[in-house]
Amino acid sequence: MFEMELEDAKFWKDCVDAIVNLIDEGVLEVKPEGITLKAMDSSQIAMVSFSVPKSSFVSYKVESAEKIGLNFDNLGKILARTRGKERLRMSSEENRLELDFSDGTTRKFKVPLLDLSVGVQKEPKIEYDATVKINGGQFKEILRDASLVSSHIALEATEAGFFVEARGDSADMRVENAKSAQTVSEVQARKPARATFPLQFLDDISKSCPNEGSMTIHLKNNAPVKVEYAIGDASLTYYLAPRIDVA
Amino acid sequence: MFEMELEDAKFWKDCVDAIVNLIDEGVLEVKPEGITLKAMDSSQIAMVSFSVPKSSFVSYKVESAEKIGLNFDNLGKILARTRGKERLRMSSEENRLELDFSDGTTRKFKVPLLDLSVGVQKEPKIEYDATVKINGGQFKEILRDASLVSSHIALEATEAGFFVEARGDSADMRVENAKSAQTVSEVQARKPARATFPLQFLDDISKSCPNEGSMTIHLKNNAPVKVEYAIGDASLTYYLAPRIDVA
Amino acid sequence: MFEMELEDAKFWKDCVDAIVNLIDEGVLEVKPEGITLKAMDSSQIAMVSFSVPKSSFVSYKVESAEKIGLNFDNLGKILARTRGKERLRMSSEENRLELDFSDGTTRKFKVPLLDLSVGVQKEPKIEYDATVKINGGQFKEILRDASLVSSHIALEATEAGFFVEARGDSADMRVENAKSAQTVSEVQARKPARATFPLQFLDDISKSCPNEGSMTIHLKNNAPVKVEYAIGDASLTYYLAPRIDVA
Repeated sequence: MFEMELEDAKFWKDCVDAIVNLIDEGVLEVKPEGITLKAMDSSQIAMVSFSVPKSSFVSYKVESAEKIGLNFDNLGKILARTRGKERLRMSSEENRLELDFSDGTTRKFKVPLLDLSVGVQKEPKIEYDATVKINGGQFKEILRDASLVSSHIALEATEAGFFVEARGDSADMRVENAKSAQTVSEVQARKPARATFPLQFLDDISKSCPNEGSMTIHLKNNAPVKVEYAIGDASLTYYLAPRIDVA
Repeated sequence: MFEMELEDAKFWKDCVDAIVNLIDEGVLEVKPEGITLKAMDSSQIAMVSFSVPKSSFVSYKVESAEKIGLNFDNLGKILARTRGKERLRMSSEENRLELDFSDGTTRKFKVPLLDLSVGVQKEPKIEYDATVKINGGQFKEILRDASLVSSHIALEATEAGFFVEARGDSADMRVENAKSAQTVSEVQARKPARATFPLQFLDDISKSCPNEGSMTIHLKNNAPVKVEYAIGDASLTYYLAPRIDVA
Repeated sequence: MFEMELEDAKFWKDCVDAIVNLIDEGVLEVKPEGITLKAMDSSQIAMVSFSVPKSSFVSYKVESAEKIGLNFDNLGKILARTRGKERLRMSSEENRLELDFSDGTTRKFKVPLLDLSVGVQKEPKIEYDATVKINGGQFKEILRDASLVSSHIALEATEAGFFVEARGDSADMRVENAKSAQTVSEVQARKPARATFPLQFLDDISKSCPNEGSMTIHLKNNAPVKVEYAIGDASLTYYLAPRIDVA
């Protein structure tokens, strides 16, 4: 049994969107100190780790840790209906999650809890060679550029900057973010690191990063990329497996 | 033979939209005192009664009552092409309705009149138990909320307020507009009244209500709902049959 | 080998759009004095003649005339990705055209050159009877009006003004731009001229005319229409064959 309240339902909408971009169903771990989720996407090549602290809520009553299985796709559609600034109260009933939106009118939704197993989801331990901090909106624009050319893109960080390449029949593309460019606030590379990834997954992963926010990308040659960003006080970490680079 | 002119074609567009949401073809009754229409939708579960007084027009010449059959779907598309503030002159030719839009340039459309029979369309006489006045935009938002959950919704008015419920596999929904809520300006209920309606029809019926305008909903247990609103000086009244409430 | 630079990539995007509306692939003639293209659409009923002077570029190095075959459809999609004010540098490599967009970040695209034959494309020599100068946005609105009614429209110029007609089952349409209307800045007609054209092609031809810009239409009875407009310093001329007027 738990009960918690947010001042702005939009915040929870953004969090759920960042999860649903990768997985349709999953298990939220509701704990006394906050809420977390770790899950692989259905094709097992990407992973999301989500966490929001108790302090993001205006009231937060969780006596003991609880795991609740949810259809995030369904939940995201309900949250998408929030308008203006609405309070959101979430509470558990027997086998349902109740969402109460209020701003004068009260709108109550009760969604069924699902009986899902949480696979133990350890995050990969990788010693990365390079770290890039880039503006979220800028990275999403680069992905859109690349989508004209190919379904895969190579991410590369060197001492000189951060580079993105895509090759296709209709064109080849190369985007150069020099270390000094305004769009990257940091490029660190102990040694050059490069790997190629499926564009669609990078798109899903970065979609919820605020355009004005910063996204941190960790790279190592032909290793999974690690992408991190924040939505308010919530933190999102994603891993995505590379494909063998044929470039 | 008639001839009438409106200062703003947009007004007539809104009127025709309010009709076409329910019926594709129908008969306008053009009378010396104004224009009316009464019609059932093709599935015979909803009815629209439309009326606009002579005074809405800047000039209005109708010598004797005339019935003109029109394809409102077609007429609505032509009216949707109006831009900015255009004058609209309508006149009858032999077997066509002429629409002249003017704002410097003149655009003339002639649409064929249809040979349609007007069934005598009496409005149902129901003694309603409850009346709700709600903001049009608010009611449309509630319908959108409900569409996530079910294809039917229950409307309920009691002394406490106006309530909307929908139940589905993905979620249950309940919207509570307390009597004191800003979104309802009036809730009167001699006794509680509740009935369930197909969402799509409520959507069609309320679509043309101005978001800032007021919509009046009359309810009686398991009886047809009566919905009224105004577009400028034109008045729209709709009736919609309930389905047996399985809630 | 050539190299040229534009201050605003958006200008080149607009030029390529004006070409791609009619043809998917074609040959640009890059000459010391500027760039030109003449091409028929694939159905051979419309022709586009494009020309942009050297002076439109901030730097322009072309030693000898060169013909480069391009997929404009592909090129247009890449150019559509330009954002804000970006510089665009274009240069030829062996068998590729390189496009470098820069505004801090550099985005490079290399598109393959195609081996296409330039048919000798002479422009038709027609002595026109009437000339109309009309606001580009206004003409596009008229085409949208007409699309409700028919797939063909008649253009007519007389001493009285410029008239557009379309006839269909759902309605007949006539748009009257009197000589004095604000939307036409000039109507000259030695004798009345009228011809009927496929709407889709007129739409393709006029699509890239700036809404605030002026479009010149030359007419002669049942002869091809000639349409001219400017995009910045670039000039576009189109010819479109009439169909036999059954009006």
